[in-house]
Amino acid sequence: MRIKLTIQYDGTSYCGWQRQKNGVSVQETIENAVEKLCGKKASVTGSGRTDSGVHAKGQVAHVDVDGNIPPERFYLALNTLLPDDIKILSSRQVDESFHSRFSAKKKTYVYRFYVSEVILPLKDRYAVKISAAPDIEAMRRVGKVFCGEHDFAAFRGTGSEVKDTVRTIYRLSVEKTDGGLEISVTGNGFLYNMVRVMAGTMLAAGYNELTGTDVENALKTGKRDKLFKTMPAKGLTLESVEYDI
Amino acid sequence: MRIKLTIQYDGTSYCGWQRQKNGVSVQETIENAVEKLCGKKASVTGSGRTDSGVHAKGQVAHVDVDGNIPPERFYLALNTLLPDDIKILSSRQVDESFHSRFSAKKKTYVYRFYVSEVILPLKDRYAVKISAAPDIEAMRRVGKVFCGEHDFAAFRGTGSEVKDTVRTIYRLSVEKTDGGLEISVTGNGFLYNMVRVMAGTMLAAGYNELTGTDVENALKTGKRDKLFKTMPAKGLTLESVEYDI
Repeated sequence: MRIKLTIQYDGTSYCGWQRQKNGVSVQETIENAVEKLCGKKASVTGSGRTDSGVHAKGQVAHVDVDGNIPPERFYLALNTLLPDDIKILSSRQVDESFHSRFSAKKKTYVYRFYVSEVILPLKDRYAVKISAAPDIEAMRRVGKVFCGEHDFAAFRGTGSEVKDTVRTIYRLSVEKTDGGLEISVTGNGFLYNMVRVMAGTMLAAGYNELTGTDVENALKTGKRDKLFKTMPAKGLTLESVEYDI
Repeated sequence: MRIKLTIQYDGTSYCGWQRQKNGVSVQETIENAVEKLCGKKASVTGSGRTDSGVHAKGQVAHVDVDGNIPPERFYLALNTLLPDDIKILSSRQVDESFHSRFSAKKKTYVYRFYVSEVILPLKDRYAVKISAAPDIEAMRRVGKVFCGEHDFAAFRGTGSEVKDTVRTIYRLSVEKTDGGLEISVTGNGFLYNMVRVMAGTMLAAGYNELTGTDVENALKTGKRDKLFKTMPAKGLTLESVEYDI
């Protein structure tokens, strides 16, 4: 039977979601736990990769198992075999047609900044330090340019080989937080490093280093200049993945 | 000259503030940085010990140095020699009569809980998991009993040898947070493990396992029963230390 898992992890100690030759991945850690629990190897398929150091509040994956554990109790058994920085929040049986990646309708990522001259040890694990407060209204103006369906070829990391680079952004917000700000973005999918480049772009806008017109041009031409920086992994959290079921 | 330091640290990887034979302490880490910076050993004296795993948003310490670094830039130089989980937020010259411990007038600690059936990796570093939401009003009622001057002999960890166990609590609040609650307590000083025992006591009250009368009796008799549990270190953060200067 197929089981849908909702997973939370602190990505700090992992080389990302996906199995890698060098380094321990979240996927591998969960697959090892499933193997111990069920006595048999099984692939745990995620809704998408998260990079090394990226966190997840609600990653979704599926796994096919034929054990005797009731699917709605599966997560509790699995958690006893997982470290404290990776835990399964829930599990339930789904139809065999469900696929964590292909069935996903929407994903929401949050990127967090804190404003400080000095690294703040109690904030630095899940947010990125910026030295000066950016203009949030300017960030929101650029955020509006991203909304809708666009070719995001200019807004991805190098090394990405995906051919279809058209994505739809449904919602994007920039909000002040206690001592910082957070960008929340919901879309039907994201290219490699796309949220981190968008965050860098919006931050540059917040410092008056670029405008919505620059972003419009990048969306049109598929090229971006160096001001559209890729922000560090630790500020990024995959908040949730939504499905029709 | 004497320099006052305000320090933030994530206590997870340390055996507490104070130098220990087994394990790396926050104090030792900062003293090593001072020695590298000034070319000479110097004691860094904290406002008080924090236990292994306890965090600090604003610990205060003082150190006597005779280097040429301007005191108000001292923290920036020191930070280049410190790991990312210990940083100095500010430094300034103070009178030789200033002592981080003896001059302290008030300290504020915060104890954080989150409510969840499962360990939440993104919350578990700075808060303690509880499975059910406690009655916050019942916690506040017990919190009021703690306020004022009392003999807190019953509310400390074993192994404490301090003779004067009278302390004054100026302010105590219990507030809901996103997914949990926090207890904030300000006093003129705290005994060993005192905040962690107070937090355990208030939590028990929130679960209707004890009342304000039990707390009054413990304050009077100097004895507590097993329901007054000591809560884990990671939920505790030393928020600030206040001085007259």
